[in-house]
Amino acid sequence: MDNSLNPQRVIAELKELRRLTGDANGAQRVAFTPTWTKAREFLKSRFDGLPVEIHNDAAGNFWATLRGEKSQELLMGGHIDSVPNGGWLDGCLNVLAAVEVLRRICTETKGKPPVTIRVVDWADEEGARFGKSLFGSSACSGNLDMNEARSLTDKEGIKLPDALKKVGIEFDKVKDSVKELKNAAAYLELHIEQGPVLLDKNLPLGAVLGTFGVERHAITFRGQAAHSGSTPMNRRKDAFLAAAKMSPEVYKIAERSGMGVCTIGSCSTKPGIVTSVVEECRITLDQRHLDADKLARMYAEAKEASERFAKEGGCTVSWERIWHIRPAPFHPDLINFCDEAVRETCKTSHRLPSGPLHDAAEVCMAGVPTVMMFVQSLHGISHNKIEDTKEEHLAMSVQAFDRLAEKTMGWIRAKT
Amino acid sequence: MDNSLNPQRVIAELKELRRLTGDANGAQRVAFTPTWTKAREFLKSRFDGLPVEIHNDAAGNFWATLRGEKSQELLMGGHIDSVPNGGWLDGCLNVLAAVEVLRRICTETKGKPPVTIRVVDWADEEGARFGKSLFGSSACSGNLDMNEARSLTDKEGIKLPDALKKVGIEFDKVKDSVKELKNAAAYLELHIEQGPVLLDKNLPLGAVLGTFGVERHAITFRGQAAHSGSTPMNRRKDAFLAAAKMSPEVYKIAERSGMGVCTIGSCSTKPGIVTSVVEECRITLDQRHLDADKLARMYAEAKEASERFAKEGGCTVSWERIWHIRPAPFHPDLINFCDEAVRETCKTSHRLPSGPLHDAAEVCMAGVPTVMMFVQSLHGISHNKIEDTKEEHLAMSVQAFDRLAEKTMGWIRAKT
Repeated sequence: MDNSLNPQRVIAELKELRRLTGDANGAQRVAFTPTWTKAREFLKSRFDGLPVEIHNDAAGNFWATLRGEKSQELLMGGHIDSVPNGGWLDGCLNVLAAVEVLRRICTETKGKPPVTIRVVDWADEEGARFGKSLFGSSACSGNLDMNEARSLTDKEGIKLPDALKKVGIEFDKVKDSVKELKNAAAYLELHIEQGPVLLDKNLPLGAVLGTFGVERHAITFRGQAAHSGSTPMNRRKDAFLAAAKMSPEVYKIAERSGMGVCTIGSCSTKPGIVTSVVEECRITLDQRHLDADKLARMYAEAKEASERFAKEGGCTVSWERIWHIRPAPFHPDLINFCDEAVRETCKTSHRLPSGPLHDAAEVCMAGVPTVMMFVQSLHGISHNKIEDTKEEHLAMSVQAFDRLAEKTMGWIRAKT
Repeated sequence: MDNSLNPQRVIAELKELRRLTGDANGAQRVAFTPTWTKAREFLKSRFDGLPVEIHNDAAGNFWATLRGEKSQELLMGGHIDSVPNGGWLDGCLNVLAAVEVLRRICTETKGKPPVTIRVVDWADEEGARFGKSLFGSSACSGNLDMNEARSLTDKEGIKLPDALKKVGIEFDKVKDSVKELKNAAAYLELHIEQGPVLLDKNLPLGAVLGTFGVERHAITFRGQAAHSGSTPMNRRKDAFLAAAKMSPEVYKIAERSGMGVCTIGSCSTKPGIVTSVVEECRITLDQRHLDADKLARMYAEAKEASERFAKEGGCTVSWERIWHIRPAPFHPDLINFCDEAVRETCKTSHRLPSGPLHDAAEVCMAGVPTVMMFVQSLHGISHNKIEDTKEEHLAMSVQAFDRLAEKTMGWIRAKT
């Protein structure tokens, strides 16, 4: 068996995984399902004949460890689970590229690399069943909110702890997985971009600056219901008018912020009938930025604007926080290595933030130096069967990711 | 019995009707219910001892006729039915004021007025049960859409024809009531304003110019769902942004139109989740104007704006007409009489359109010279138990309505 770096082998393995675990509607590797177990078996079999130790941790994360001369560890990983009807690359590209890099290092170092090399497959990154993403990595980082997680239920009303028990995971012990990061010196994750930035720039690869922090709120405007025929326009307290003004406004706020994004994802109205001015209008606002101060400013500006619009229209407004997470800026040295590795592979690099969250955010927030590399997504689309990436770009991504791993290994060795 | 005009008697009768047919939640005179029948019995008993002929027509409208020297008829009326938990004056003020005016005329003319005087109580003006207002008056005007009406069902799934049969009305014959308007020379209707215009101007009474025409549409913007984190702002096709821009725009359109009104009453979003740009946004738009050309212009301007906003945001837009009705401009001579009658009663008059529809619109569209008089509504609110009007204003309204009837009688006589 030839164990020099072979990007084509990764592509072949991705296709094989697709065949095993996908159907006409896309990838079906939803965490903790039989199809996901099949995907994991496939992953596990990649290590057959290699001198690696394999185990699942207390949170169900899969680890393959190649012991090196030093106990300091280079971690590489991703998630083999998918959303229902998902894309063939989201998550598993990372894992299978990491396997390939481990194989290459194992060959070159005759099974004894200078630092320990580990591949991790995080459990339930997508949160498709319980609506809570980053389950395995947040347990491992220690950030998982146990009270919140304990009460999560799926559509059938089954609680997360009961579902975990069925796959051999004891809910109350999931944070025992924290010990897995004890010797972690760096974490690398390759991922499809899931957005259109590299596509627009016609670049195969990019170095990721970090994952956006998120402020997520429900905003409720309250005015007064009134007859659509008998109420003059200047006598209305129109909650929809106040809410509607928020939409162009959040575009301005995002623009002022530099590279932040703001999304009004839903709008509902009460009484919501054709013959009445809207009494109550509820919108959701999702704001994201890589810089914590700028995120806070985006939030403050939206709040101020909402109060201004409410006042202009004789309405009131209230905000309710749905969720938030801090930005996770990646390690500057590793971002530089990533940039170099990309340039060495395909001449031009681009630095960009990650809008979507990734397991890398959890590892980063646990204090492990982290970076991600993105490869271009065709259509700029993910979580859909049409998600795709050119094969030449996939091959380049494995090449560049391997270079990043090599640089990072040297960096860990030099530091210790 | 003293039969000179006695506005206080009307107020006493209104209170008696409230006691008989209302409860703590308001008026309960929903058409075709036992409470409504009780209200009708009360109305019928008002004519005891008067030389009038009484009958119900083929559509269930109640008619009381005082034959005059001429067969040309002065019609006065309204509706004794209410919405559930309705206001005590909506509809029945008209009917009981008309009874009082008939009594006064009957006395003064010793039972033989110069023209025939008729009081009508239209059946099911509110359409509370079947969602179709102006049932009795639209049957009588000939405008009732029989196919549409035949398939109307209430919440229990009972069809309108079956419900009518239970109260002795044969659905297929309701348009036989058209003949009731054969000799109609004028129609007068007194109504509470149900809006805040007279309240704002601190005026008791106003002359109504006509009822607004209505253009009612559902507008659907279609963009593209995209991840709230990974999609740069300038790459979005945000259906909510396009729809939201409509809200301030329809206020401008209404303002330019003079006295039209535009209402976006509901908004819904798909997929409608916090982490996705809105793919599809549906709003309803209700536009009303007294002038048919200006109504058409308001509609055209809204359509043009929606297409502009869709294009700006990379979206498409489609319009679907829910309902429309032509404006019903009242008769200029009768508007002048109404204005005079109001000024003679309380010095200042005001001419205003009616946003809500009324039976008067149907009679007007049937070609009968028509006018309405409005009396101030406290709070500018109707269809609610808090609906109210000052007693002194109610008394003035009966006085002015009587003057209007007298002038109209003279006008009919002069014409024939």
